[in-house]
Amino acid sequence: MTKVIADISMSLDGYVAGRDAGPDQGLGVGGEPIHDWAVAEESPVDTEILDTAVAATGAVVMGRRTFDIVDGPHGWSEDMGYGASHEPADAPPVFVVTHEVPEKVRLAGRFTFVTDGIEAAIARAAEAAGERDVFIMGGASVIQQALAAGLVDELRVHLAPVLVGDGKRLFEDIATPPRLEPLEVTQAPRAAHLSYRVIN
Amino acid sequence: MTKVIADISMSLDGYVAGRDAGPDQGLGVGGEPIHDWAVAEESPVDTEILDTAVAATGAVVMGRRTFDIVDGPHGWSEDMGYGASHEPADAPPVFVVTHEVPEKVRLAGRFTFVTDGIEAAIARAAEAAGERDVFIMGGASVIQQALAAGLVDELRVHLAPVLVGDGKRLFEDIATPPRLEPLEVTQAPRAAHLSYRVIN
Repeated sequence: MTKVIADISMSLDGYVAGRDAGPDQGLGVGGEPIHDWAVAEESPVDTEILDTAVAATGAVVMGRRTFDIVDGPHGWSEDMGYGASHEPADAPPVFVVTHEVPEKVRLAGRFTFVTDGIEAAIARAAEAAGERDVFIMGGASVIQQALAAGLVDELRVHLAPVLVGDGKRLFEDIATPPRLEPLEVTQAPRAAHLSYRVIN
Repeated sequence: MTKVIADISMSLDGYVAGRDAGPDQGLGVGGEPIHDWAVAEESPVDTEILDTAVAATGAVVMGRRTFDIVDGPHGWSEDMGYGASHEPADAPPVFVVTHEVPEKVRLAGRFTFVTDGIEAAIARAAEAAGERDVFIMGGASVIQQALAAGLVDELRVHLAPVLVGDGKRLFEDIATPPRLEPLEVTQAPRAAHLSYRVIN
């Protein structure tokens, strides 16, 4: 059965991006090491975690700022699937939660824009995912909304061994936090991969 | 050689205590599960981690608010050492970083008050520790000061599988964060025990 999985990288001090992150600044001041584990592909543990997640992904949900980065000039490339080592043909559909549909999309065809909120986006993604899972890949705001709405089945945090000091926090203003049940932790040189069942 | 180890429990969303923590409210709103791993003593992994740390501790450094809690009516008991299963005779000396020496101390004899800052407190603790280690057990403010001053050799975070939502964050306002090198991660049911070498 389709699970809804929030899956994101975070620094030990809780940031998903540094100060001034954006399409031209990447992950902002001091933020790049947060994603090192996924980019460096140095460790077989990291590669396996990435490949397993990609293979299980039937559809992706992301927020508008994340879209602006991945569709921006330094974002995903045309000949790349979801996950650097995969083919574009394998790329799952991406549902972008946004207030306004952008006028121009570089990687047109990959994205569907959903203007009626996180619940609608996840419902459409679940329909598209078939037997596979829905991955909410961020940013922080979309994950917070999905957690607050009780729509997340599993939370995966790739905890990078880095202190960023300032930027965008993953967890902020969750009025009624859900309970978590730890599932697994795997240590790799550039991240501790943690997963939790979310008890809504 | 004596290492200076900052050792603290933190929720997945970065809190060391919930809202309204204090001598009469314990760890505050939703904060108690942050320390469950150390209190419940259900898992042999947790017990071993605690016992190993206690055995290696030559002296403890803590902040004033932490002192107010451990010396308060619901704090440490007289017939208890450092760590619930240990004898008072084994209890290491505790150096409390404070602006003002308290007039009354319940567990007199256990605490030395240091009014000239974190560096002085750690220096005195290191002297008292002999060949063993100095443990900075919190709170967040003292650990932040020690990290900022470049005085921490190792950072241990016991990451509890809980979202607290509001309270006192471990990492806040670190202007120039030090680099970290991951040492070890051990999963137990109530905490992922993470340790990092701090590269000052």
